[in-house]
Amino acid sequence: INRTKFGKGIQVVAEDSSFSFKFGIRFQTLYQGVHTKGTKGWDDRFLIRRARLKFDGYAFTPRLVYKIELGLSNSDIGAGGGGDISQTNNADNIILDAVAKYQLTPTLSLWVGQTKLPGNRERVISSQKLQFVDRSLLNSRINLDRDAGFQLRNEHQVGTVLLREMASISMGEGRDITVNNAGGYDYTGRIEILPLGEFQGDGDYVGGDIAREETPKLALAASYDFNDNASRSRGQLGSFLSEQRDLSTWFVDAMFKYKGFSAMGEYADRKVPNGTPVISYQLDGTVDETFVTGKALNLQAGYLLASNWEMAGRYTTFDPTAVTGIGEQEQYTAGLSKYIVDHSLKVQSDVTLIKEQGRNDRVQFRMQMEIAL
Amino acid sequence: INRTKFGKGIQVVAEDSSFSFKFGIRFQTLYQGVHTKGTKGWDDRFLIRRARLKFDGYAFTPRLVYKIELGLSNSDIGAGGGGDISQTNNADNIILDAVAKYQLTPTLSLWVGQTKLPGNRERVISSQKLQFVDRSLLNSRINLDRDAGFQLRNEHQVGTVLLREMASISMGEGRDITVNNAGGYDYTGRIEILPLGEFQGDGDYVGGDIAREETPKLALAASYDFNDNASRSRGQLGSFLSEQRDLSTWFVDAMFKYKGFSAMGEYADRKVPNGTPVISYQLDGTVDETFVTGKALNLQAGYLLASNWEMAGRYTTFDPTAVTGIGEQEQYTAGLSKYIVDHSLKVQSDVTLIKEQGRNDRVQFRMQMEIAL
Amino acid sequence: INRTKFGKGIQVVAEDSSFSFKFGIRFQTLYQGVHTKGTKGWDDRFLIRRARLKFDGYAFTPRLVYKIELGLSNSDIGAGGGGDISQTNNADNIILDAVAKYQLTPTLSLWVGQTKLPGNRERVISSQKLQFVDRSLLNSRINLDRDAGFQLRNEHQVGTVLLREMASISMGEGRDITVNNAGGYDYTGRIEILPLGEFQGDGDYVGGDIAREETPKLALAASYDFNDNASRSRGQLGSFLSEQRDLSTWFVDAMFKYKGFSAMGEYADRKVPNGTPVISYQLDGTVDETFVTGKALNLQAGYLLASNWEMAGRYTTFDPTAVTGIGEQEQYTAGLSKYIVDHSLKVQSDVTLIKEQGRNDRVQFRMQMEIAL
Repeated sequence: INRTKFGKGIQVVAEDSSFSFKFGIRFQTLYQGVHTKGTKGWDDRFLIRRARLKFDGYAFTPRLVYKIELGLSNSDIGAGGGGDISQTNNADNIILDAVAKYQLTPTLSLWVGQTKLPGNRERVISSQKLQFVDRSLLNSRINLDRDAGFQLRNEHQVGTVLLREMASISMGEGRDITVNNAGGYDYTGRIEILPLGEFQGDGDYVGGDIAREETPKLALAASYDFNDNASRSRGQLGSFLSEQRDLSTWFVDAMFKYKGFSAMGEYADRKVPNGTPVISYQLDGTVDETFVTGKALNLQAGYLLASNWEMAGRYTTFDPTAVTGIGEQEQYTAGLSKYIVDHSLKVQSDVTLIKEQGRNDRVQFRMQMEIAL
Repeated sequence: INRTKFGKGIQVVAEDSSFSFKFGIRFQTLYQGVHTKGTKGWDDRFLIRRARLKFDGYAFTPRLVYKIELGLSNSDIGAGGGGDISQTNNADNIILDAVAKYQLTPTLSLWVGQTKLPGNRERVISSQKLQFVDRSLLNSRINLDRDAGFQLRNEHQVGTVLLREMASISMGEGRDITVNNAGGYDYTGRIEILPLGEFQGDGDYVGGDIAREETPKLALAASYDFNDNASRSRGQLGSFLSEQRDLSTWFVDAMFKYKGFSAMGEYADRKVPNGTPVISYQLDGTVDETFVTGKALNLQAGYLLASNWEMAGRYTTFDPTAVTGIGEQEQYTAGLSKYIVDHSLKVQSDVTLIKEQGRNDRVQFRMQMEIAL
Repeated sequence: INRTKFGKGIQVVAEDSSFSFKFGIRFQTLYQGVHTKGTKGWDDRFLIRRARLKFDGYAFTPRLVYKIELGLSNSDIGAGGGGDISQTNNADNIILDAVAKYQLTPTLSLWVGQTKLPGNRERVISSQKLQFVDRSLLNSRINLDRDAGFQLRNEHQVGTVLLREMASISMGEGRDITVNNAGGYDYTGRIEILPLGEFQGDGDYVGGDIAREETPKLALAASYDFNDNASRSRGQLGSFLSEQRDLSTWFVDAMFKYKGFSAMGEYADRKVPNGTPVISYQLDGTVDETFVTGKALNLQAGYLLASNWEMAGRYTTFDPTAVTGIGEQEQYTAGLSKYIVDHSLKVQSDVTLIKEQGRNDRVQFRMQMEIAL
């Protein structure tokens, strides 16, 4: 039994309704070039930025939903500059999501497994559904990423207002760590308020007003995360450091959409409450190992034309804790997107002026195609 | 053409019957914690223990069956502590099975490719269909694992008695080795006797009496393996050592099931017939490199309640060859499982008391969920 | 909606025709042994040489075709002898193809993404559709491999003559490089002439005359490639070297088929136009780092019997640039294949006499089974 439409994957429902299954596949080709002011250079790359396989559906009962997402591109699965890491059994980290979601009551769900934490909105929006070519500087410095653990998610209506409460306990070190947990757990809470009711097509987690909301829609949210004895420089991401620190993180974010116009804002503040984020210094006094802490702001807005072209702008700052020795950064981005079939078949490009403390200004151009079955 | 039921995968048969195809996907989320006596510690982890894709069916003729199984979790594909190994082209070892099975006669099949050897019963039982959270200590120290080569498998009936004879020649060094064979081949033989006839649903290779046999069923088997000039410390598994040794291994195992009660026993004996398993010593006289040899016993039994809860117990010992310097070990395990849909949707937990020579006693708790489409 | 036949994969077309999807899976089991003259040795291996998942179809409109091919075997994804490389994010290189092909006009297509360049015929023929167990020495020394970039492909008819023109600009360093492009781009052009019209079943890119052409068919082609500031010893393949060189490469190739007889020839010539291919020497004066340049010739022919057994012969030489210190090589190969279902289910074997300068003669035997759904 198949019912399929482009962008909705291959769908199968068992004859006896004992399970459903949806398969999706997508990839992005990315061209990216950077010019550094004061030089003649143009450094570019062209790569398969993301390629993913997705499997989801319900198992045995519609109350039990499973989701598996696999990363295939080198950017998704590689351990990065430092080579393989023993904490993941020296393996490429192919599994992005592997999670079961059980509906305990009509409003309350229990999630078990590995998936995104209820953190900042920009992170939770799928990389397929972004308004720009990729997420902002805020998210690359301060975010809550995929982690393994338990989540409780509640959603209920109070008049026309939609409320969501989420809480999670997770290991705190990110995807598929095969060794014993270093230090304590990670505790996350998030509250969302949609005072004007639900967005069309879950649009509060979709970049751009693809659905062209006929009435104004607003989402407001705040997340707090306490990563007890964190081991990695950016919580779920980054290098494993030689000492641990507690990380305390606040996020406040909002999404607004109306008739093709969309605006999103996020503020993030991460600190080490009980000491310094710096672990060690080099002989010359520069920072050797440090956690990434500080404050970041991201503001973006766009307008979708009737022709499905969208123009958008973004302003992002990152103001790191001074002692970390990390440079302040400001980014100004202008984006142009053509949504041929929503976020399933599109071409996006953006130009970013990057102003980073202690470095020459840079101008980055990116162009990306997305095909998602 | 689709016929599907939860736990049976997505099935397709070609319109012209020229092939069949079945796709399955499964994953396990595992929580595991250990308390060591005499300390205050509780060391735990939470991970995607296994995630697998399975493809099987027949190709061109029902007499030719193919099977491909892929591992995705870091535990399945990583090279472990020592980092990548050149013997697998420094690659993650994604392919578990890739085998073709050709039915030469109604009773005799020829297998070509990479899959499990006809070794100890506990190893051959799928990791999806175990009675406890994972296999026993016996199997982690002495087993026959996946290998690349040829197998002949014969099955025939003598009165009510079912007999199976299996023989294989394989490379001896395990999964997808891309370099020339080091040393000689691995020769395996196995005989199985089912004096009371076939189990329901191939239950002689399923943990627990899920099928609730109405008449008693018994399987008895013995395997012998000679790994000529083995290179890895545990045959198909373990580190590549700097010298080679012949490994000679006996397994005797049995499975009994009746009305929800099941019992399984295995005995393993591995030795280096022509010398010492130890390759080298450190300066202080402790063993540096050694093959893992010795004797091991695993006994387990369980009872499946009408409610599909199962209680089970397991006793395992490992008695290594003294010269290897490996510590003796005894394990006592109590398991509790809820089979929601057989082995396709279940939650299992077990508690194990680990008594290991030269170390403090430990108590291990594990809880695992399995979803298998 | 499914229409399936063995060897054609699993096919799905959306009810609203908004996309099509085809899934294929294949694997090869390879046995390979080598005897070196003057020794008593027989060095062999048995492995899963290739295992692949393929996804293709059209997206939204039949004019937009996508193709994704994933490698799974250690031979396909590993970084080889030198361990992981930072240029691929220290990741296994799973993605072979990820490309979108857009039909600009009835004859002209634009390709964007990662796939094979329009290089030598032997390389472009799928590894599934080879006349021998594997490609020749020519291709392993001088070829154009998969790369990321843009291609334009035009095909048109002039009378009975079919003409194809292809051009590409690519990054030049091969599959899914995640770092900035080192040096310049790679420029490729290719022209194909089929004076006697199109082959059946795209047979100009299929090994052996599987389709048994009823009239003679001929394909003639030439490719030229300029890899500006290449970084890897064999262009898209090989080690990253410590300096860069321009690589200039010519290929001329031909394919002829008639009534079960097939012949294919290729000539390759690669040089560093502006200097020496050698980067560095060791203290004793032998070459340390060098690009692989020189000339190579491959000639092969075969005849397919009515029984679908094929006998084939191959002669290959590689004549490297003297200064590289690489040894000249000649190979004589005799092949015997049984095509049970074309190239989708077959067993192939070949014997090769390898005469390499400075080494003892070797005789190599290989036997490979292919199953491709």
